[in-house]
Amino acid sequence: MQYLEERDLDYIGIGAAILGSGGGGDPYVGKLMAKQAIREHGPVKLIDADDLDDDALIIPSAMMGAPAVMLEKLPNGREPEMAFRSLEQYLGKKADAVMSIEAGGLNSCIPIYTAACLGLPLVDADGMGRAFPELPMVTFSVAGMSATPMVLCDEKGNKMLLETVTNAWSETLARTATVAMGLSAMISIYCMSGRNLKDYGVRGTISLAREIGKRLLHASQGKHNPIDSVLEVTRGFRLFEGKIIDIKRDLTTGFVRGSVTIEGMDSCKGSIFELLFQNENLLGLKDSVPAAMTPDLITVLDREKGFPITTENLKYGRRCTVVGMPCDPFWRTEKALQQVGPRYFSYDFDYKPVETLAKEC
Amino acid sequence: MQYLEERDLDYIGIGAAILGSGGGGDPYVGKLMAKQAIREHGPVKLIDADDLDDDALIIPSAMMGAPAVMLEKLPNGREPEMAFRSLEQYLGKKADAVMSIEAGGLNSCIPIYTAACLGLPLVDADGMGRAFPELPMVTFSVAGMSATPMVLCDEKGNKMLLETVTNAWSETLARTATVAMGLSAMISIYCMSGRNLKDYGVRGTISLAREIGKRLLHASQGKHNPIDSVLEVTRGFRLFEGKIIDIKRDLTTGFVRGSVTIEGMDSCKGSIFELLFQNENLLGLKDSVPAAMTPDLITVLDREKGFPITTENLKYGRRCTVVGMPCDPFWRTEKALQQVGPRYFSYDFDYKPVETLAKEC
Repeated sequence: MQYLEERDLDYIGIGAAILGSGGGGDPYVGKLMAKQAIREHGPVKLIDADDLDDDALIIPSAMMGAPAVMLEKLPNGREPEMAFRSLEQYLGKKADAVMSIEAGGLNSCIPIYTAACLGLPLVDADGMGRAFPELPMVTFSVAGMSATPMVLCDEKGNKMLLETVTNAWSETLARTATVAMGLSAMISIYCMSGRNLKDYGVRGTISLAREIGKRLLHASQGKHNPIDSVLEVTRGFRLFEGKIIDIKRDLTTGFVRGSVTIEGMDSCKGSIFELLFQNENLLGLKDSVPAAMTPDLITVLDREKGFPITTENLKYGRRCTVVGMPCDPFWRTEKALQQVGPRYFSYDFDYKPVETLAKEC
Repeated sequence: MQYLEERDLDYIGIGAAILGSGGGGDPYVGKLMAKQAIREHGPVKLIDADDLDDDALIIPSAMMGAPAVMLEKLPNGREPEMAFRSLEQYLGKKADAVMSIEAGGLNSCIPIYTAACLGLPLVDADGMGRAFPELPMVTFSVAGMSATPMVLCDEKGNKMLLETVTNAWSETLARTATVAMGLSAMISIYCMSGRNLKDYGVRGTISLAREIGKRLLHASQGKHNPIDSVLEVTRGFRLFEGKIIDIKRDLTTGFVRGSVTIEGMDSCKGSIFELLFQNENLLGLKDSVPAAMTPDLITVLDREKGFPITTENLKYGRRCTVVGMPCDPFWRTEKALQQVGPRYFSYDFDYKPVETLAKEC
């Protein structure tokens, strides 16, 4: 039986932020919250999806909104439990486990916080294996499951329960509510049975995040290159090395949208890399040619230490390495690409896997 | 025992639209819905607040949004029941009666529709005795009661349940949701006990609306002046007679805001009347001098027939009579004026009763 201790949060925070592809929130706030909860309530049991009965009830816990806002508008700490309990009450059933819906610095830590506070186990899985900006971009949604009933709670104490006719309507109504709540809220969403989880979940995301974080931190302390250590475990590629020379960032309709321009250094000298994002990094162009695209993972790492730099932390002058990592195979199916592929985000490219693009480069 | 028959809807639709002060929606759609429901389910029992036990549960039913939208985006008819039943389910208790929250062509008819569909009695009362644009502008709110739990349902089938920390937050979150739902939604709100209703409700609004409508319709058919018949029963005043020469109307942040300019005719020849509204008519200025102001009722009537013209139906060239009527005494208290007086709406005037202004004119 595995347990998540305080120390694991350092690993998971970093590893999940790398899987978060620039989104899913900076790990700092979520890590502190989860550590504090573990200190108070004890370690969190990490269970495998197969450990759950088919009729078990699993409720994911997450932050919704623009991650940039969470750097200043802090949660009061009671929202995740309030959202979770309200959904249980609405369903008339107690949950058996907590889950994260996406991998991200914040959104992998919040469910650990929630699990610790509630004394429930955390399932080693999620609905993406990375982070995506919109609610229907979840394996469970592509498989036909409903995002609702869902509950949103803000730090003022306001609570909203939604039942919608489509997951696109969940996105619209929850997003406008999140904006009205101040651009961030804690949610419980995509409640599911053990059977649903086993059928459609992305397995092992938490332990993968921990493994990535552990290797990176140990490499930073030793002689191994920290970025190499990340690429080994994620089967990823170095896409670009350089210095951030421009950032456009726009907080509109509940998202952080923008782009960052990186001027090449060393082997990339003379080249320009442009990275486009909507909460998450979605398209990387090296000299206007695609180097990686959604749904593959694109993450900006600190060039020296290998630490992930989420979209809200991109700053002029930072030396960075952009890495590309293959997504979970689920996302490469035709049906999934319609929901998360480059054309969904209005980029005029057909999807090509990062492995293929890396060879062409 | 009184019952509301189909014929009463013709009276109530008109009378309530007059009490609606330009807002509360055009009666047409609501009247058709309520008549149809009475035809299908039988007449609706109209009861007095005093007929209810102190611990009875009363749930008001209403439309929220910009009335102008309801002229084209029709309800599917199931939303009021869905909102009502969802709130009952959330409270874990069956309601004893339906109520209207405001007087208005639409918002006095919708509760009759809901009561007919559910086979419940309608209480002869509301929370305003007129219509107001924002959720906290209700006697119950001024008395300290919570607007939530409330439920919003749209014609697509989406449902939202809100629990907020203040009624101002109910307004913010429900308003943004209404906008996202397409600028109109059906709601159940301000659920209350029989005791609360007896303590804070505005009594007799439905029968007053019916009386106004009946007198007006009968006057139109006979020799009595229809506008005089309205003023007799509402103790109101003729403020202006003229022709609409300009309308500014803006659909922003979920409201219809604007102003109408009326050029004087006959005894008002040479004068200009300006009427400012936010869903409801809020301030009438005759040659820049206040003639009536919120919370007193200001309604535009057709000059010949006396029929009310709601803000969404104001049109260039219409000959009209503007009337002012005293509001329920509750609204003239200091505490209530802070919530609904002219200064709340950023008009730089101290409140003066319409009776006083009529004398000064």
